[in-house]
Amino acid sequence: MRSSIKRLLIGRPLKSTELGEQKLNILKALAILSSDALSSVAYGTEQILLVLATIGAVAYWYSVPIAVGVLFLLAALIISYRQIIFSYPQGGGAYVVSKENLGVNPGLIAGGSLLVDYILTVAVSVSAGTDAITSAFPVLHQHTVLIASILVVFITVLNLRGITESATILAYPVYLFVVAIFILIGVGVYKILTGDISATVHDPIGTPVMGITLFLLLRAFASGCSALTGVEAISNAIPNFKEPSPNNAAKTLILMGSLLALLFSGITFLAYYYGISPKADETVVSQIAKLTFGRNYLYFFIQGTTALILVLAANTGYSAFPLLAFSLAKDKYMPRMFLIRGDRLGYSNGIVSLGVASILLIIAFHGQTERLIPLYAVGVFIPFTLSQTGMIIKWLREKPAGWVAKLSANLIGALITLTVLIIFFATKFSQVWFVFIFLPLIVLLFHRINRHYEAVGEQLRTYSETPAVPVEGNVIIVPVAGITRVVENSVNYAKSLTDQVLAVYVSFDREDEKRFEEKWEKWQPDVRLVTLQSHYRSILQPLSKFIDTIEHKASESNYRVTVLIPQFIPKKSWHNILHNQSSVLIRAYLIFKKNVIVATLPYHFKK
Amino acid sequence: MRSSIKRLLIGRPLKSTELGEQKLNILKALAILSSDALSSVAYGTEQILLVLATIGAVAYWYSVPIAVGVLFLLAALIISYRQIIFSYPQGGGAYVVSKENLGVNPGLIAGGSLLVDYILTVAVSVSAGTDAITSAFPVLHQHTVLIASILVVFITVLNLRGITESATILAYPVYLFVVAIFILIGVGVYKILTGDISATVHDPIGTPVMGITLFLLLRAFASGCSALTGVEAISNAIPNFKEPSPNNAAKTLILMGSLLALLFSGITFLAYYYGISPKADETVVSQIAKLTFGRNYLYFFIQGTTALILVLAANTGYSAFPLLAFSLAKDKYMPRMFLIRGDRLGYSNGIVSLGVASILLIIAFHGQTERLIPLYAVGVFIPFTLSQTGMIIKWLREKPAGWVAKLSANLIGALITLTVLIIFFATKFSQVWFVFIFLPLIVLLFHRINRHYEAVGEQLRTYSETPAVPVEGNVIIVPVAGITRVVENSVNYAKSLTDQVLAVYVSFDREDEKRFEEKWEKWQPDVRLVTLQSHYRSILQPLSKFIDTIEHKASESNYRVTVLIPQFIPKKSWHNILHNQSSVLIRAYLIFKKNVIVATLPYHFKK
Repeated sequence: MRSSIKRLLIGRPLKSTELGEQKLNILKALAILSSDALSSVAYGTEQILLVLATIGAVAYWYSVPIAVGVLFLLAALIISYRQIIFSYPQGGGAYVVSKENLGVNPGLIAGGSLLVDYILTVAVSVSAGTDAITSAFPVLHQHTVLIASILVVFITVLNLRGITESATILAYPVYLFVVAIFILIGVGVYKILTGDISATVHDPIGTPVMGITLFLLLRAFASGCSALTGVEAISNAIPNFKEPSPNNAAKTLILMGSLLALLFSGITFLAYYYGISPKADETVVSQIAKLTFGRNYLYFFIQGTTALILVLAANTGYSAFPLLAFSLAKDKYMPRMFLIRGDRLGYSNGIVSLGVASILLIIAFHGQTERLIPLYAVGVFIPFTLSQTGMIIKWLREKPAGWVAKLSANLIGALITLTVLIIFFATKFSQVWFVFIFLPLIVLLFHRINRHYEAVGEQLRTYSETPAVPVEGNVIIVPVAGITRVVENSVNYAKSLTDQVLAVYVSFDREDEKRFEEKWEKWQPDVRLVTLQSHYRSILQPLSKFIDTIEHKASESNYRVTVLIPQFIPKKSWHNILHNQSSVLIRAYLIFKKNVIVATLPYHFKK
Repeated sequence: MRSSIKRLLIGRPLKSTELGEQKLNILKALAILSSDALSSVAYGTEQILLVLATIGAVAYWYSVPIAVGVLFLLAALIISYRQIIFSYPQGGGAYVVSKENLGVNPGLIAGGSLLVDYILTVAVSVSAGTDAITSAFPVLHQHTVLIASILVVFITVLNLRGITESATILAYPVYLFVVAIFILIGVGVYKILTGDISATVHDPIGTPVMGITLFLLLRAFASGCSALTGVEAISNAIPNFKEPSPNNAAKTLILMGSLLALLFSGITFLAYYYGISPKADETVVSQIAKLTFGRNYLYFFIQGTTALILVLAANTGYSAFPLLAFSLAKDKYMPRMFLIRGDRLGYSNGIVSLGVASILLIIAFHGQTERLIPLYAVGVFIPFTLSQTGMIIKWLREKPAGWVAKLSANLIGALITLTVLIIFFATKFSQVWFVFIFLPLIVLLFHRINRHYEAVGEQLRTYSETPAVPVEGNVIIVPVAGITRVVENSVNYAKSLTDQVLAVYVSFDREDEKRFEEKWEKWQPDVRLVTLQSHYRSILQPLSKFIDTIEHKASESNYRVTVLIPQFIPKKSWHNILHNQSSVLIRAYLIFKKNVIVATLPYHFKK
């Protein structure tokens, strides 16, 4: 039953040899890895205008130079991550770069903040998409959390089906969005050129603005930089690319950067030229589309694809999170389960964990995750800065051919991202201070996990200084409850393994004890019977005490103690309630508390 | 932690030898076993008047002859149950009597309806007590279900502490109630004799009544019979009495019958003489008390003790249910767990089951359990009738000295209870038809349970025709995941038990397989290694297939197959998440699906 539901949802299991078919070509990779970055086009310009609006419409022209600054940073990041891709073709991105060049802790900080960031990506983008849906159908408004959770489950299942399948499905909405925005920009520019749009509604660039401050401009710039989240995803996901994966990843990165630059500058230019003010109840993109097309089908096409891309931005998290978790797990900083490929060859534990964590976040914030956006931007710029700095150290140390140019690219990148980060902390401290608490906690957790695995490894190593304890012989203890076929089987089995078989009977009163001893003497005269008195009607307590005694004696002469417990396996599961199954309790207790081997002899009832 | 909470709630465990101290003397037994019957005084008269009120106040005088009829039935029941107590001194009441004399199915019908009845007793009486509380404190009204559930938990815990302890505590309210009603009757009769109460408010007995029908009188009689529920409880609980238990139980029964007769006739007489009409918002007892005392402290004393006895009526169920369940479990009609004495020597599984079932009923009916009262009366009169009929058969078969008198008592009892039962079905069919569905289902369930235990017993018997399979030798399969200290321990242990040790390694690719085989050859050249290819990255599937092959070969030559699985036991429980614990899954699968012994070798991490 469970298994066939699983088959229906995620499809038949794939052989390990089919892994090659699960690799992405450039077009598909672009679709799923760039959705986060490209979706920023829907709100990046608006973020800049929102800050400038505090001064007044006259300040809007500053959006153009600020956008140029963002594009400059984008170029620096693309160049820098291209270098990272070729230097670290096994993937891992900022985590690996920082760990290799700056040390373990910077690596863990980069990795931890990216992991948290991908969870935030999913929660924030799905919540944004849900808002778009509930704005269109207000009756659904009270079910925001439920709808968002269903969307997360849907994306999770899609990703569990495997990366190529999700890429195939998700490519359509992503490219539709790109096409839609290109049409919007194209028609807008055409209308400007033909004079359909009045040039008088905006102030020319360079118009003096009263009250503008550097602080405000920096804040607007930092807000605009939120368009750059998601740029790092490709560097984490290199192993998902078809061979030669670094080259394909680098090409995808360049393509993504170019698309993002074109769309972002187009939208920013139109917003400036149209003289658009940010409004509480209508997005900037919606205003541009309405002015360009009127409320016709093209307008709704823009709006629909925008809502879709917002939801699908989540998918970038699904591509990058499991691979990053894999890198951390491989280095023993995260649980081993993140190393396992699921039925469809994806790292399903990572995919499911991401889904569960985002649903928890959505529930905790009642679907109002906008408050998390500043946290999310900080979570990206910390690894941006760390990875660039790491690359600087690398170039200084290795000094390969043309290292000065490479170093310059990373140096510029590092300086800008660090500046953005400082601006974030300076201007939005009340919203991002939480980072200073949870990042150290995460790094601490990584270290605790690592310490445990190291300790385990040490204990498991065969060449450690203490040699393995030799086994000189065996004692098998068989708790018996009566004279039955099961006891007969157990005793016969134990006798076939060793001569030292001890049957143990727990009796609740003297007469019962005597009666049983007599019966046993007739039935199994060659097996020693030990009877234990239980004053409190507990089987476990006297048995546990007895095992302690035997175990103590046995360990002195390097004997192993095995407790053989019969377990009834009823034919129908409701029958379980008819058997007290004390065997299950006894076994659990012994395994966890004692140093004995516990053997279970199943007795399968035939009816 | 859990254990110390348990100690605090129910006290230190008692030794089995302390059982004698857990027996009841007559005074304590009367308190806990008669609370159900005595509490009927609070509503029995009212039930009669409610039916008569449909004709008018002029019909109220009929309550006197009807009460005489109820007292007559009470006498018949007391005599009859006294005979049952001496004939079946081991307890079990209607179940044992019916089973021995009428056959298994009548016995199961009697037992099943009593079990359900005790659950109803608890739910109905606790709900009635909760109503009394929420009437006094209306703010609590919205928490009815919660308060009722807390009361059930309280009574359950009290009973888990042991029967003497609950009897000691509960004796006070029961005797206070008896004293309170005696004071009420005494003062009332005194006031009538001194002429303080007018004799003109009631019609004299024998006044002709227009429109009265036999059907209506029978219905009033049947309603009055609800005062007799709880009479059978003593016959189920004989084992709880101090020795000589049958004599003590019989004395308690007579005492209870006399008290019930006195209180019931007193209240009925006062109600008639005072000319009281049943009201929706005030009970008959409250009206009598108000007329007798006015609203002074004696009035509140009557009201308070009445509310208490209504809640404590539940306790009768707690005394009788576990013992009846024990009787049924001893005959293999109920799960074996009802045979086990808990820490305080009560049959704690019965006590807890009763508590859980009543809370479920209270939740299902939102605390409005009055609708269950007719069902509850039917549930008592079915075993009443069956047990009397059983006794008739017994006397006819055994014909002991004075059997004619004994038979007459039971014959009269049987005829009356059967009549009452027929009246119930005739007059309240819409409320009690459900009995015809659930009683057959319960009897069916009893039979299914019995059939399972019989089948199990047959399979466990050592002298069955098929001899036990001999054990000629052993094969031990050791799944290995690498070359570690745990594997070394496992292999050493297996080698100490048999020469036939097979190490099994599941590999996910060819190179890994080769590499491991080479390493193994150097490390454990004398242990045969089998490598299995897993195309789908599952360890379980190839292992399961391999075990099937080995098991098939082994069973031909009477060899036993043991699978030895190491299990990591981390020092801290959070560490469990860091280990995939596939061993736990593999073990569960093998135990349930295969015919192999599974031995678990625990590896306790030291840090």
